Amino acid sequence: MTTAASEVRVKGEAAKATARQMATLSTEMKNKALHAIADALLAREKDILAANQADYDEGKKAGLSDEMLERMTLNHARVEGIAADTRNVASLPDPVGEKFEMTIRPNGLVIGKTRVPIGVIGSVFESRPNVAVDIASLCLKSGNAVILRGGEECARSNTILGQIVAEAATKAGVPAGAIQLIESLDRGLVREMLKMNDVIDLLIPRGGPGLIAMVRENATMPVVSAAAGVCHTYVDKAADLEMAVTIVHNAKTRRPTICNALECLLVHRDVAERFLPMIAAKWSEKGVEMRCDPTALSILRKGNGASAWKVVPASPEDFGKEFLTFIAAVKVVDSVDEAMTHIATYGSGHSEAIVTEDWPTASRFLTEVDSAAVYHNVSTQFTDGAQFGLGAEIGISTQKMHARGPMALKELTTYKWIILGNGQTRPL
Amino acid sequence: MTTAASEVRVKGEAAKATARQMATLSTEMKNKALHAIADALLAREKDILAANQADYDEGKKAGLSDEMLERMTLNHARVEGIAADTRNVASLPDPVGEKFEMTIRPNGLVIGKTRVPIGVIGSVFESRPNVAVDIASLCLKSGNAVILRGGEECARSNTILGQIVAEAATKAGVPAGAIQLIESLDRGLVREMLKMNDVIDLLIPRGGPGLIAMVRENATMPVVSAAAGVCHTYVDKAADLEMAVTIVHNAKTRRPTICNALECLLVHRDVAERFLPMIAAKWSEKGVEMRCDPTALSILRKGNGASAWKVVPASPEDFGKEFLTFIAAVKVVDSVDEAMTHIATYGSGHSEAIVTEDWPTASRFLTEVDSAAVYHNVSTQFTDGAQFGLGAEIGISTQKMHARGPMALKELTTYKWIILGNGQTRPL
Repeated sequence: MTTAASEVRVKGEAAKATARQMATLSTEMKNKALHAIADALLAREKDILAANQADYDEGKKAGLSDEMLERMTLNHARVEGIAADTRNVASLPDPVGEKFEMTIRPNGLVIGKTRVPIGVIGSVFESRPNVAVDIASLCLKSGNAVILRGGEECARSNTILGQIVAEAATKAGVPAGAIQLIESLDRGLVREMLKMNDVIDLLIPRGGPGLIAMVRENATMPVVSAAAGVCHTYVDKAADLEMAVTIVHNAKTRRPTICNALECLLVHRDVAERFLPMIAAKWSEKGVEMRCDPTALSILRKGNGASAWKVVPASPEDFGKEFLTFIAAVKVVDSVDEAMTHIATYGSGHSEAIVTEDWPTASRFLTEVDSAAVYHNVSTQFTDGAQFGLGAEIGISTQKMHARGPMALKELTTYKWIILGNGQTRPL
Repeated sequence: MTTAASEVRVKGEAAKATARQMATLSTEMKNKALHAIADALLAREKDILAANQADYDEGKKAGLSDEMLERMTLNHARVEGIAADTRNVASLPDPVGEKFEMTIRPNGLVIGKTRVPIGVIGSVFESRPNVAVDIASLCLKSGNAVILRGGEECARSNTILGQIVAEAATKAGVPAGAIQLIESLDRGLVREMLKMNDVIDLLIPRGGPGLIAMVRENATMPVVSAAAGVCHTYVDKAADLEMAVTIVHNAKTRRPTICNALECLLVHRDVAERFLPMIAAKWSEKGVEMRCDPTALSILRKGNGASAWKVVPASPEDFGKEFLTFIAAVKVVDSVDEAMTHIATYGSGHSEAIVTEDWPTASRFLTEVDSAAVYHNVSTQFTDGAQFGLGAEIGISTQKMHARGPMALKELTTYKWIILGNGQTRPL
């Protein structure tokens, strides 16, 4: 325990010691380091794949699920993908040093804001080994030092990736110690890390709900994370129903396992008789199970082709649930107000959509629904940094402070005020 | 305890119940309500002054300091001032609904951000009764519900002000319950309030260091506050020394009791022999005590007129101390680097200034010093919402997340993403 404790403390303080220097690195130097990291990853593919194979073998022996094993596996294409993502970060604009909201006051003072790194980012993550490189690249480009702690299942992969990234960055001129990967598997380390608010300015957990909840409860520094994605789509009485089928189908089935997938379908009573059989027929192609409130249930049970649909009564817990698979809760509502109240009650503040041709109704939905992303006539599966034009993503925030929705480089910065004068003093 | 507990819980939930409606109030309605509040304050001046007199009498009996009694006293001019501040908030632009960072993606999606209220603001504050009205006005204009808990010493003043504000707002059409003042004096209430993260989205404490530390340690929701203001001014070797005297004198003595006052003076070795006697002579007019490092001490002890100066050796604790009175720590440094390292070590991240005629040195200071406000050739006493052009101020943040430095209307909001389309679905 003592040795383990020292690893996170020693590496944390080493990272913090570089923060002032990190904040002033030139864009050119940071980009050079990012390309050097990409080069090093490609050059050492063999070593990376060998370490990953060892993780895979141990995971298989330990009985990890096929899905988990698939997620953690690296191969030639995936290593190339990670290197390409790193070069992509190099191509994004450097957020540090941007001046904004500059004004000149009546007394001649020039007052405005300048964008600066946050300082030291802590990241606790699970399974996918690309996460270590992703987060390190984004932190480097935004001028932050970073302390990474990956999951046990990818320990060897994370260790070698962390070493390659840190070495390549240092060789390119980044201060040694700015990118730190905790190698010990001692679980007490994560708890110790969460107490280090003297070192870590912001903690970003990436992983399952268990990890996120543990971090939220124990962290003593600010945390930005997505709690869960219980996303709704509301099909209004004025919806184009063909469009609604396309949107709802995509929102649920494109990738049901990600946090922006539809979990609950709300349908206006006036169109429920027509729309529900349409979406049931479409969803039956993918075997989506519909957990229905009594009204939806009675409509669907008498529908044409109902025998081929997976239609069951919803239990109360099905509303507000993140299924993350081919299941959707379904409810018929009397109005956009009822839909919005349902979302306020059961949603997780992630992504919600309305399908309607009526702009006043859409406008009310966009204004009144209090989620990180609110959509009109679009699939919620677009909630993603790359899709939003941020070029990358370090995570999605469902909280309200600091950053909301997809987070990328700018969300890894803060600002300070700068004030330029020529001897101004404040009168009494 | 049970009754007390219910007051904060009941009022908190009532405030939260109005949040959705508050977010959609028109600017016109909010401004009408703010003017109605100002009118009501003026109309009920007699009742306000009577309640304040009762607080004053009790405070006097209880042995409160003259300074404290002065801070809590209301009179005709101060009530007029509070009403005028409320009308000023009405005159400021409404931050809610602003669209920004709008882009059109290659697939035709219109993606951008819209500014929205945070939800429910909690405020725990001490002494000055105007704070209750200030915070309520700023929360109302920014579309937030608010729960206020004032200090015991102004209980009667706060209660009547809270009632007047809430009544006037409700009469003007603001949802009843949006402005809540906790009246019970039970101290357990504050602790209960700090646990209500299901109701309160952001907590803003205003008061002394004891209150702020208690809130920081016990709050379960995000907190924005100023920890302390240990502000530095560095007089560079390339400073215009006449200007430096004016700036340093103003930063220390204009109002030494506020958080943006100079607490530590750093002087470059090359100009220390000339500058230190100049500032000592100026400061002696106000009786400023200089707590000096050995170099500064030996220069000042042999200065012309030294017998009239209050010059003493600094103890190690004098660096990093918030004196809030006519005392300053003084240190001679070898370079701007030593000055910046001193600030990084002993500063509180509030406001720091450099005085120099050399732009490259100033630029380094502005870039590398990591404080909420960084000044070139200006007195740090300008760190203030009104001085920065924000029109008002709910507090000053020395933390890095969400908001930094003076906070006003915009800092009481967050954003959400809105995405407009015409049936877009995300390809696999």
